[in-house]
Amino acid sequence: MTETKEKKPSDSLDHNLAQIKELLDKQRLVENLVHQQHQTHGDIVESLLHRQHSVELRSRLKKMHFADIADLLEALPLDDRQLIWQHLSDAKAADVLLEVSDPVRENLIKSTEEKALLAILHCLDADDIAYITEDIPQDILTERLKSFTITEKDWLQSAMTYPEDTVGYLMSKEMVTVREHHTLEQAQFHLRQIKELPIHNDKLFVLDKRGLLTGVLSLQAILLHEPEARVVDVMARDVVRFQALDKANEAANAFERYDLVSAPVVNERGKLIGRLTVDLVMEFIREDTSEDVINLAGIQEEEDLFSPVVHSAKNRGVWLFINLLTAFVSASIIGLFENTILQIVALAALMPIVGSVGGNTGNQTTVLIIRGIALGTITADNRWRLLKKELGISLLNGTVLGLMVGIFAYAFYQNVELGVVIAVSMVLTFMFAATLGFSVPLLLKKVGRDPALGSSVLLTALTDSLAFFIFLGMATVFLL
Amino acid sequence: MTETKEKKPSDSLDHNLAQIKELLDKQRLVENLVHQQHQTHGDIVESLLHRQHSVELRSRLKKMHFADIADLLEALPLDDRQLIWQHLSDAKAADVLLEVSDPVRENLIKSTEEKALLAILHCLDADDIAYITEDIPQDILTERLKSFTITEKDWLQSAMTYPEDTVGYLMSKEMVTVREHHTLEQAQFHLRQIKELPIHNDKLFVLDKRGLLTGVLSLQAILLHEPEARVVDVMARDVVRFQALDKANEAANAFERYDLVSAPVVNERGKLIGRLTVDLVMEFIREDTSEDVINLAGIQEEEDLFSPVVHSAKNRGVWLFINLLTAFVSASIIGLFENTILQIVALAALMPIVGSVGGNTGNQTTVLIIRGIALGTITADNRWRLLKKELGISLLNGTVLGLMVGIFAYAFYQNVELGVVIAVSMVLTFMFAATLGFSVPLLLKKVGRDPALGSSVLLTALTDSLAFFIFLGMATVFLL
Repeated sequence: MTETKEKKPSDSLDHNLAQIKELLDKQRLVENLVHQQHQTHGDIVESLLHRQHSVELRSRLKKMHFADIADLLEALPLDDRQLIWQHLSDAKAADVLLEVSDPVRENLIKSTEEKALLAILHCLDADDIAYITEDIPQDILTERLKSFTITEKDWLQSAMTYPEDTVGYLMSKEMVTVREHHTLEQAQFHLRQIKELPIHNDKLFVLDKRGLLTGVLSLQAILLHEPEARVVDVMARDVVRFQALDKANEAANAFERYDLVSAPVVNERGKLIGRLTVDLVMEFIREDTSEDVINLAGIQEEEDLFSPVVHSAKNRGVWLFINLLTAFVSASIIGLFENTILQIVALAALMPIVGSVGGNTGNQTTVLIIRGIALGTITADNRWRLLKKELGISLLNGTVLGLMVGIFAYAFYQNVELGVVIAVSMVLTFMFAATLGFSVPLLLKKVGRDPALGSSVLLTALTDSLAFFIFLGMATVFLL
Repeated sequence: MTETKEKKPSDSLDHNLAQIKELLDKQRLVENLVHQQHQTHGDIVESLLHRQHSVELRSRLKKMHFADIADLLEALPLDDRQLIWQHLSDAKAADVLLEVSDPVRENLIKSTEEKALLAILHCLDADDIAYITEDIPQDILTERLKSFTITEKDWLQSAMTYPEDTVGYLMSKEMVTVREHHTLEQAQFHLRQIKELPIHNDKLFVLDKRGLLTGVLSLQAILLHEPEARVVDVMARDVVRFQALDKANEAANAFERYDLVSAPVVNERGKLIGRLTVDLVMEFIREDTSEDVINLAGIQEEEDLFSPVVHSAKNRGVWLFINLLTAFVSASIIGLFENTILQIVALAALMPIVGSVGGNTGNQTTVLIIRGIALGTITADNRWRLLKKELGISLLNGTVLGLMVGIFAYAFYQNVELGVVIAVSMVLTFMFAATLGFSVPLLLKKVGRDPALGSSVLLTALTDSLAFFIFLGMATVFLL
């Protein structure tokens, strides 16, 4: 059910944090006491006191929605997070485990004892296990699988074969079906027997005698038509359906486009194999776009806000290292022109201007292209027109900013030729930056890589080197 | 209704584009002919031919879902887009107008004649008009308002007072209510009279005698309980509800957290004033995160893929100009050290390395902080711990990369002191970059600005200047 506790969205996390922090502080105080007086007669008293706060914490957590607890855990440092986590009931912990972000889930699982983890996993069904299967240690997963039925095991097995960016990975096996030839009354009777529908069940999937999907019957349709009507007569036949290997981002686009709440997933023969729901699609959209932001900045993967320093350092170091290598290349290009710089030292001060602004304009193009790729608006057909447009923009902005920088250089160094050289370099760098900003993500995509990951770093490296080469090269030719 | 035409999501845009392009080519060919032979006797024949292709195009568009047409328009250059747009029926055009992105909507409205636009607007209700009101020219809006009822005008008036990032802006007035004391049978009878429920109507809003919201009744609940049961007995009382001035991103978080499809919006007294649905929330999430990506790259606002060059150039030029100003500052800092550079020209080649990698590490921090702000996981409480963590990461990565760059400098220039100076500069720059990357978005937020817009540009400017100052300064002190 979607209805939960009364909820004013604003400030809730801050409020929860404050309350919980107070309890945690008490708890920690007690723990310190217990720790200090470990061998004294105060033991029993302390442990009682300890227990009392524990009870208070437990009861407060019990009243909180699991999604709110998940938020709380995300915002808490590791030791506090651990304390809260240990105070959750198994069932609640299971819900929370599904809700937190990937890195926090990893952290929680790693810090939980095998037996406790198994108890938590026993509160999750095959669908849920499939969703977090990658984070569960192999031996514990095997142990948990033992209590699955064969159908559940089959489902899990097949779910695990789908890559993370496909519909198959996101789909759920919880769905309600109905036969074409039934009446709405029979359908409703069937529903009453099930008693509780799965989440986001806005429609039933209609099967023919062979078990193939022939349409969908919305709950609305059941409510709005006469009970005697037959399913086949009131169902919708034109159904947005997906296959397990369809790309998740295309499915997400379709959910937005057709305003779906749930949709059937079928195999090649049209047999119903799963259900895709809007909550997972929404989560996918959120993660997919925010992954882009993170990857663009040269961060490998989503980070736990409080992951250990070394872990985060590694996660970010990879692209910094690549950045360093490309910076060496730029440095060697500058090195080629040492003589020129020795004769006109102003070049040393001016060259980063060309590199910086040039890199920025290329980055603007890259970001828009990456976005276009994600939304699917860039096609083989409009590609060249787009490049032409980007070149036009660069020519225009390059000329305007080039003139500014040229006038600045002239005014500062009283050297007309220097002004002209930097202005022209600016225009040329802008044009190259646009071409590169346009090509880099499309090339990355072509070779099967994520167009966002590292685009910016690669691009900045290329534009920097180019900018230095153009500017210092022109200076060598025209100013010496 | 959510069910639409059969749809295999992959390749559909490419496919649509190819088909439409063919028709457009024919159409254009004919138009050229007509144009060339304007005064000849071929006129009538040509115009017939013209009409025939028009008919074909029109019939094909008629079969397409409006969301697919919207996608098509986004991906088409302006002249083709115009041709398609003119071939749409008013009702279809109205749906498409709601579906396209902001910049494309602007473009379409601008290119439509007043009378035609008015006809299209007449197919939209007050809810829809409220959603696009900013893009409609004032006189046309006034004209359209004339045919509104007083209730509709009131609704529009109040909807227009809500800022774009609030729940009030996103909410719809289409909702179905039911009284507490009714039976489920009466509720169902009521539904049958309405005949068609609004989109994403997974629940009815339950009002008491004073018209205050007391709970919600899901369609499921109606189906699963006996018809004689009273609404008040089966409704859910703990309801996630919003107020019109709640922030849209907090509402979006709540929709994700509590897996909502729709939720009531109430005023301070608990009176029901609107309904928020998952489709608009999903669109908001998509736009909000992708706006971050775009703003981070120094692009003011979302761009139409085919907006005129001058328009786009302006949109991106603002931040390039700011970037240029900040680059002037870096240049002047380098200028201070001209003497040092003249004595050790290697500094000119090495200094961009420190600037580039330092800028990148700061950017990584900034992006994660912006994300944390958006998700609400950064609180007054955990802020300092986060800064400490970021400093730790910078110290670690700065040391590792600093050693590398130091060894490179030593190996390349056979100068130990130079190697040490650049290694230490790297570490210091990293530490400052982390502090700045942490502070810039939080400061922007504090002064009430969007933390994403321009963060990167400001940050790169600051780190560049700092890197040059630290590196050249240290070189001046220790190497001369």
